[in-house]
Amino acid sequence: MTLFDSLVRHGMPFVPRSIVGKVARRYVAGEEVSDAVRIIRELNSEGAMATVDVLGEEVRDPARAAAAVDQYLALLDTIDREGIDANVSVKPTMLGLKIDEAMCEQHIAAIVHRAAGLDNFVRIDMEDHTCTDATLRIYRALRADSSNVGVVLQSYLHRTVADVGALLPLTPNIRLCKGIYREPRSLAWTQYETVRANFVYLMEKLLEGGAYLAIATHDPYLVWAGMTAVDRLGLDPQDYEFQMLLGVDPELRRVILDRGHRLRVYVPFGRDWYPYSMRRLRENPTVAHHVTRAMLGLGPR
Amino acid sequence: MTLFDSLVRHGMPFVPRSIVGKVARRYVAGEEVSDAVRIIRELNSEGAMATVDVLGEEVRDPARAAAAVDQYLALLDTIDREGIDANVSVKPTMLGLKIDEAMCEQHIAAIVHRAAGLDNFVRIDMEDHTCTDATLRIYRALRADSSNVGVVLQSYLHRTVADVGALLPLTPNIRLCKGIYREPRSLAWTQYETVRANFVYLMEKLLEGGAYLAIATHDPYLVWAGMTAVDRLGLDPQDYEFQMLLGVDPELRRVILDRGHRLRVYVPFGRDWYPYSMRRLRENPTVAHHVTRAMLGLGPR
Repeated sequence: MTLFDSLVRHGMPFVPRSIVGKVARRYVAGEEVSDAVRIIRELNSEGAMATVDVLGEEVRDPARAAAAVDQYLALLDTIDREGIDANVSVKPTMLGLKIDEAMCEQHIAAIVHRAAGLDNFVRIDMEDHTCTDATLRIYRALRADSSNVGVVLQSYLHRTVADVGALLPLTPNIRLCKGIYREPRSLAWTQYETVRANFVYLMEKLLEGGAYLAIATHDPYLVWAGMTAVDRLGLDPQDYEFQMLLGVDPELRRVILDRGHRLRVYVPFGRDWYPYSMRRLRENPTVAHHVTRAMLGLGPR
Repeated sequence: MTLFDSLVRHGMPFVPRSIVGKVARRYVAGEEVSDAVRIIRELNSEGAMATVDVLGEEVRDPARAAAAVDQYLALLDTIDREGIDANVSVKPTMLGLKIDEAMCEQHIAAIVHRAAGLDNFVRIDMEDHTCTDATLRIYRALRADSSNVGVVLQSYLHRTVADVGALLPLTPNIRLCKGIYREPRSLAWTQYETVRANFVYLMEKLLEGGAYLAIATHDPYLVWAGMTAVDRLGLDPQDYEFQMLLGVDPELRRVILDRGHRLRVYVPFGRDWYPYSMRRLRENPTVAHHVTRAMLGLGPR
């Protein structure tokens, strides 16, 4: 555990918003939809696609969940009107998963329906392990009627190998990532090398099983593993895509695009940037180090 | 090499029995068969199976070897009478291998015969490289008449890949482990990653070749590799098992059982706990560190 983790975990549970705001500037497009549109135009001109996330999670108020649906419907209209190459990613807990699962499913169904009418696509993000079962249930229910919906699986969870086996018969559309939430050892692999090896295993199982796969990683080893897996299987670039987060390693984005693969950048925007930025911070030891020094009142070094 | 290893190897060949006794309490069920039965009942109630080892090795007196046979015959009767889910593991050097190989084979045959009558199973443990050839000869001889006997292969030995090839035609029952004895570099892989990669290679070769495999490891990466190997091959949980030693990582035991795999715990008991506990000590750097400090007359830190 890093000093940053320790500070956040013990004694300093909350990093000042002003400090996290500086981090957010790197990882978040901005607070308004117009900020997202501007960033996506830049990405599209580089040859990258986008998936847009309206920031927000852990909503407990039904009115806020309903408002989130409206934001997503407007966002889909904006994408269509602006003619940018982007789909959307939704977080179940922003759409009421922690209030009522059926309500959440209806909310996501409404977004998927609007997307279908605009020939667009909705990715259901995966949150922590308390959401996994419900999120997969919702995905299965929506997948029965719609082909323009996908979900996410995380290679750090022990359960994922079984989830892949259960989902493959649906010809699913899966984003595979390592996973970023803090999970207990009883549920998740904790060794770096095991999470990585599991990513490779699951990726190959999904690609060989006919899934459409979004290979979501910033780990150059896994980017290599993805490139060689699709080479070995003789896949067409339309059969898969790579995904990376906004603000992380633009040089690696360029590498992927230059080799002829499709790449989609996850573009979050909105006012609720704190929890997302905190997760990014934990992932970035260099930035976390500077934040730790700032929190301790030390100057930059 | 750790300071503990150096102390044991040079100048301080013998760690005081009182100190090793504290270590034994973690890794050994107790001195009496009733201790083993109590521990096995607990393990069974967790969903784990057991294999019981009567502690003892390097026997040079034929009467002691014969007494060990009687202990194992009584142990098999006890397991049957108590209705616990356990088989037995035997060490050839406890049963006279270093006195006379034919006598050792007869002794193990007697135990296998009793086990067969009780619908139980005998695993022949693998000791250091001076025992490998004789142990495999004995296994082959007994396997010709009995299906309720298995042996152990160690992924650190250079020879093991050839041993797997030679044993596969017997549809063998194999426990695969890394190996814990000190072996010369001329016979054993010494790099951590090579021993681990060989374990994966041998595991896949054994599973693909139709062996019944006991995957004996506490390395979470190898547990993962075992889980994905059986997933890839579509094996039934009855076709293999995981194994772990008593006293090591109960949380990992739980992870394995929770994913629907079978798990067997190695439960040693008896008065001759010193050499077994010393091997465990070498494997556990944290415990070895405390023992080293105690041996040097330093307080706990």
